[in-house]
Amino acid sequence: MLFQVEMTVKLPPEMPAEQAAEIKAREKEYAQELQRAGKWRHLWRVAGSYANVSIFDVEDNAELQEVVAGLPLFSYMAISVTPLCRHPSSIREGDS
Amino acid sequence: MLFQVEMTVKLPPEMPAEQAAEIKAREKEYAQELQRAGKWRHLWRVAGSYANVSIFDVEDNAELQEVVAGLPLFSYMAISVTPLCRHPSSIREGDS
Amino acid sequence: MLFQVEMTVKLPPEMPAEQAAEIKAREKEYAQELQRAGKWRHLWRVAGSYANVSIFDVEDNAELQEVVAGLPLFSYMAISVTPLCRHPSSIREGDS
Amino acid sequence: MLFQVEMTVKLPPEMPAEQAAEIKAREKEYAQELQRAGKWRHLWRVAGSYANVSIFDVEDNAELQEVVAGLPLFSYMAISVTPLCRHPSSIREGDS
Amino acid sequence: MLFQVEMTVKLPPEMPAEQAAEIKAREKEYAQELQRAGKWRHLWRVAGSYANVSIFDVEDNAELQEVVAGLPLFSYMAISVTPLCRHPSSIREGDS
Amino acid sequence: MLFQVEMTVKLPPEMPAEQAAEIKAREKEYAQELQRAGKWRHLWRVAGSYANVSIFDVEDNAELQEVVAGLPLFSYMAISVTPLCRHPSSIREGDS
Amino acid sequence: MLFQVEMTVKLPPEMPAEQAAEIKAREKEYAQELQRAGKWRHLWRVAGSYANVSIFDVEDNAELQEVVAGLPLFSYMAISVTPLCRHPSSIREGDS
Amino acid sequence: MLFQVEMTVKLPPEMPAEQAAEIKAREKEYAQELQRAGKWRHLWRVAGSYANVSIFDVEDNAELQEVVAGLPLFSYMAISVTPLCRHPSSIREGDS
Amino acid sequence: MLFQVEMTVKLPPEMPAEQAAEIKAREKEYAQELQRAGKWRHLWRVAGSYANVSIFDVEDNAELQEVVAGLPLFSYMAISVTPLCRHPSSIREGDS
Amino acid sequence: MLFQVEMTVKLPPEMPAEQAAEIKAREKEYAQELQRAGKWRHLWRVAGSYANVSIFDVEDNAELQEVVAGLPLFSYMAISVTPLCRHPSSIREGDS
Repeated sequence: MLFQVEMTVKLPPEMPAEQAAEIKAREKEYAQELQRAGKWRHLWRVAGSYANVSIFDVEDNAELQEVVAGLPLFSYMAISVTPLCRHPSSIREGDS
Repeated sequence: MLFQVEMTVKLPPEMPAEQAAEIKAREKEYAQELQRAGKWRHLWRVAGSYANVSIFDVEDNAELQEVVAGLPLFSYMAISVTPLCRHPSSIREGDS
Repeated sequence: MLFQVEMTVKLPPEMPAEQAAEIKAREKEYAQELQRAGKWRHLWRVAGSYANVSIFDVEDNAELQEVVAGLPLFSYMAISVTPLCRHPSSIREGDS
Repeated sequence: MLFQVEMTVKLPPEMPAEQAAEIKAREKEYAQELQRAGKWRHLWRVAGSYANVSIFDVEDNAELQEVVAGLPLFSYMAISVTPLCRHPSSIREGDS
Repeated sequence: MLFQVEMTVKLPPEMPAEQAAEIKAREKEYAQELQRAGKWRHLWRVAGSYANVSIFDVEDNAELQEVVAGLPLFSYMAISVTPLCRHPSSIREGDS
Repeated sequence: MLFQVEMTVKLPPEMPAEQAAEIKAREKEYAQELQRAGKWRHLWRVAGSYANVSIFDVEDNAELQEVVAGLPLFSYMAISVTPLCRHPSSIREGDS
Repeated sequence: MLFQVEMTVKLPPEMPAEQAAEIKAREKEYAQELQRAGKWRHLWRVAGSYANVSIFDVEDNAELQEVVAGLPLFSYMAISVTPLCRHPSSIREGDS
Repeated sequence: MLFQVEMTVKLPPEMPAEQAAEIKAREKEYAQELQRAGKWRHLWRVAGSYANVSIFDVEDNAELQEVVAGLPLFSYMAISVTPLCRHPSSIREGDS
Repeated sequence: MLFQVEMTVKLPPEMPAEQAAEIKAREKEYAQELQRAGKWRHLWRVAGSYANVSIFDVEDNAELQEVVAGLPLFSYMAISVTPLCRHPSSIREGDS
Repeated sequence: MLFQVEMTVKLPPEMPAEQAAEIKAREKEYAQELQRAGKWRHLWRVAGSYANVSIFDVEDNAELQEVVAGLPLFSYMAISVTPLCRHPSSIREGDS
């Protein structure tokens, strides 16, 4: 089941550089692990911002919550969630 | 070059049913043609709405304009455009 | 799988009274049928408005789309969808 | 008398982890006590967020204020309140 | 039980003058009847607008819905509802 | 001359508890003094929030400014002001 | 007593040109009469729009309502009202 | 050339009282100097707020920037700028 | 003197095609005439929309009003105006 | 390929003056270097604010991201991006 998730990162300016680097490293590892597991299907940078557009493929709402709330940057992001489904005009098999 | 395009359709209630059906049929044909041409890379329905989330893959901003302004439903939609690029944490080759 | 759906009805003032009555009657029948089928789990009026707060229990996003887009009043409503899941502090068995 | 209450938690990033854990523990205990007392009728997590959708069943506005303002996380949440009543199309006895 | 209700009237410009006058006359009669019954406790014009701020005193949310939805101008107004209760600093007996 | 004033209190979480208690005590005293003087005509808590709806009865805009800017919590509140006047449908003598 | 009033005109595109011209002529006459009477103290066009910024000098809120609701274009405008008073740093005698 | 400028002051609560007093004193001096020079034509307090409505009379956009960015409180204010010009219905010579 | 003007066109769906074509032709002619006169310095399409971003170079606010209000599509557009001036970091002579 | 980028700077009030000066100096140098390289085609101050309107000319979305995210003030700015393309009514060769 697919969800579009938009995340905008807002780190507090006073966060020490090492702490920021450490969280970002964990975020990257987490994101790649979920991509390899097929849960995080697409991940794009929004050009000109510290934000991304993502497509998640999860079992249900509960798994979406688990996956998103587990993001190392979770408490530093504004997050919006949009449930998706197959579009009647889509011809792409994988987009279901 | 990738763009996220979000479209929400708002047909005027007084539009005759046949006219609506005719525009929608042209919209579907147009959308499928662009998908086959590789320009409209993803097309999802937003669940619970008359809206979609799309990913376009075009040469440049000018082609995006050409493709979006050519939508048969163009003047009946609220449209928002987000330029995308590769995310440093993405592991998916196709998402560039 | 649960979704909160908030619907606000906006009938055009020029709609003839009989047509409005007919759509509303179909809406009521549809809503009751879905309640009996267990898909529309809760339905409350927002006090002081022509709006409701609803909880749907569906298989997945696709079924949510099917059920919501089938509402006779669908094209006359502003609709917002919120995916829900079990809250770790909930003690109510039925709210999963 | 029913109210829909939506709560979004925003803990300051500089709050020490133990303090956060202690407030959350008190919040959980409080929420479960009110659920057992029948005042907090439903409690769902909004998937992909640190937020919930709740249905309260209270005597009147004054009790709603008492119950909500007593939340241990009260001063760390954005809260919106919507008064509900029975919907004429509802078939569920308990939703009055 | 008290509610603040804010109403902004938006009559369609094409409504014939007699029809507008007739609805407004019924609205006035309805408002005065509810004031005499003690249900519509305060009614003020917002200066410089076609809007009002009102305080209703009703049994519960259901009666608020009944009273507000019964307004002759109901479908021509934007309405917002705020549940009120006694303020701990209030010294006015009547404002409970 | 009447004004509706809505105030939402937002104390910084890092304010020491004694300081908060002291400001609130002064606010209460100030509010009650103005009520006794007939300047602060109504004061209600917005249920489920740290906010109030108030009706002030002052000589003119300048006195409103004096009274509101003198609130001990003034710099910790979001405040909105709406000028009111007698509604043509009002039957209540006192609401002028 | 001074109020800033901002007005944005929105005539329906289907209004016949003569009717529009007639309302605008009455609006102009009304505006100039109020200026001569000292009630409409300043009137500026917002550059690049069909809108104005005005300063009214009236007895009280009730007179503001009377003057603004009497505008021939009243039902075709979005209007926002801001109560003003003397600024402690002002050196201009007339701006009280 | 005239501009309407609305300024809302937001001093951080943790700013020491003497520092706040010193900035406000400089702001007042600056405002009065510009009024005497004819650049700051009107200055009103928005009743019930820490905000003002001002009319500036400057040579061009560049001078507006110079004058506004030079405000001692500049970095503590939300500022909106609206370019004005003579209104065709204005009868006041000075408002050009 | 420079202004950024953003225009979004919203033609009513019921406007006959010939009328729309005629207004657009006049708009184009007007836009090109102003460009040749040096008043409309830049004109770009916003990709994926019926909107543009423009830079006007005019004598003052009054000329901006004259030029913008003269647009054949003026009453069918949402328009926002931003006054610009030279940026201290600009190295481009022409951008003053 | 052109993009309009609007940037609003928001430095935290507690940032030491030297640190602010140092970041601004680097920002200026970076901006001028990009202007000389032809990437940052226009740069204007928004009059009366700490904001700018810019036009970037980059290869693609990825280069826009690289250039914008490299701004020394990047994490202290609110940034909005609008993709542009040639307008059919433009007569200026350089604006493609």
